Amino acid sequence: MKNQLESNLKLHLNKNLPGNKMMEAYLHSVLPAGKLFRPLLAAASYEDHWGDSQSKLEDPNSDLSLFCSAIEIHHAYTLVHDDLPCMDDDDFRRGRESTHKKYGEWQGLLCGDGLLSISLQLIQPLNFETRRFFSWATGPRGLIFGQYLDLSGEANDSLNNLLTIHKLKTARLIQASILGGFLLNCDKFENEEFIKSKTLFKLGHALGITFQIIDDLTELSEKDIGEHEKEINPWIHRQEKAMNELLLQLKQIKNLDKNSHLYAVIKTYLEKMDHKIKSSEEIINTHLSNPLKSFDLV
Amino acid sequence: MKNQLESNLKLHLNKNLPGNKMMEAYLHSVLPAGKLFRPLLAAASYEDHWGDSQSKLEDPNSDLSLFCSAIEIHHAYTLVHDDLPCMDDDDFRRGRESTHKKYGEWQGLLCGDGLLSISLQLIQPLNFETRRFFSWATGPRGLIFGQYLDLSGEANDSLNNLLTIHKLKTARLIQASILGGFLLNCDKFENEEFIKSKTLFKLGHALGITFQIIDDLTELSEKDIGEHEKEINPWIHRQEKAMNELLLQLKQIKNLDKNSHLYAVIKTYLEKMDHKIKSSEEIINTHLSNPLKSFDLV
Repeated sequence: MKNQLESNLKLHLNKNLPGNKMMEAYLHSVLPAGKLFRPLLAAASYEDHWGDSQSKLEDPNSDLSLFCSAIEIHHAYTLVHDDLPCMDDDDFRRGRESTHKKYGEWQGLLCGDGLLSISLQLIQPLNFETRRFFSWATGPRGLIFGQYLDLSGEANDSLNNLLTIHKLKTARLIQASILGGFLLNCDKFENEEFIKSKTLFKLGHALGITFQIIDDLTELSEKDIGEHEKEINPWIHRQEKAMNELLLQLKQIKNLDKNSHLYAVIKTYLEKMDHKIKSSEEIINTHLSNPLKSFDLV
Repeated sequence: MKNQLESNLKLHLNKNLPGNKMMEAYLHSVLPAGKLFRPLLAAASYEDHWGDSQSKLEDPNSDLSLFCSAIEIHHAYTLVHDDLPCMDDDDFRRGRESTHKKYGEWQGLLCGDGLLSISLQLIQPLNFETRRFFSWATGPRGLIFGQYLDLSGEANDSLNNLLTIHKLKTARLIQASILGGFLLNCDKFENEEFIKSKTLFKLGHALGITFQIIDDLTELSEKDIGEHEKEINPWIHRQEKAMNELLLQLKQIKNLDKNSHLYAVIKTYLEKMDHKIKSSEEIINTHLSNPLKSFDLV
């Protein structure tokens, strides 16, 4: 499935990009693809609700294919802009040079703008409910507000502030992925669909927060961590609260039907993270006030 | 009509913005509104094809109202990003501090991202043809490609290169405005609509090029102009070609029905520019190899 998603991505990018040097920067920002976590969630959610996701993905013009590429390209735009010198100023991303580092700063800025535009171009043939949720979740009251709060430094004040940032900056796009897989094929939106959406919304929230809190924890799996990380990492300053929040959200995730495709995607991810945390527990503990309680992510 | 457009803009921004400090930066970037040239074109085109634009604009939730705000907010995003230090590095815009100058660089970047997102959020209820054209015209093969070519410095090589940039960076959004006013209310898109769209596409192209070439000329109405302007201004280096191009495009514009609302909006703009050029002709001529030929824009 991942290969199919990646080949669709290539095709959608090529179709919507100008054929010149700028194209290199766009492609560099998206390919080779990362773990494609978000499109995999979208496809799994689609499979759980409507079945037949495999054959839908084989048609690059299907709603599901367009949506999966849009989600991933949107994710890529946020990374490209986040890496810019005026934002997080990161020279590396996924083990390669970040876009602005390799192609220049204004190229990085325009590349992000262009990827954001492509993602919104790709979703135009989809139904209204999908487009509405996607543009709300990723917009100025959603993901972009999360980026704003993050850079404002409000995360440092309390775990609640940090969770608000995780909710907006991370969970919103994950919610869009999971909900999109359901909404895409809804030809009506009545009471039943509303209730279903609410359940998926909550699951996406739980998964988004889990994803980020685990990410914060695995940031500590290096011997030397930066000063900035030391300042902001919730596991250093609010270890007990962070652990409680993680367990609370994991509980929600574990309510999922164990036979669902969504659960399978999430399980694969959690197993990987569980292994990562356990194999570097000793190093992680050197950064913490108290040793990590023993716990299983899956 | 301008007041109505501006009050809709305020309402649409308030509805889609988070209520905190970031909001100030968003509002600063859009309001008080400039001349609202693009939404005025959209409304005039709508009036010419479907009538009743006034009552449509009185309803802020009408397709026309949403579209007019989207066009203006999109225009504002391009200005905010264009002004950033890594792009044109402008501290002033419309006689006030530019967004990043007043609120900071990452705030300017996110504000542009947010405005781009709002504009695409606003058009989601509109019909497919409008959304498709809008997202193509403003996307990575349209407006954003124009920004790329502009910053690459390719404009200096020939007038044709410069015209390609004007076409993409300026004409595409003007085309989206004029075409949008027609497409918005099309409930089918067949041969007749295709031909009509083509005519409006050509008009938008002519107007976009005219707009930029006149803008290049009025840049010379100051005694002291910057070194960069001296390098790139086509009137300094290719005066005859620039004049021929301007007259060619004006001829196209003059084919418009003189009783149309579109013509009225364009005429108001051309009269203003005609006055501006004539009243500073002496200064303009100090920058040119040959004095300007006498000509009338209207």
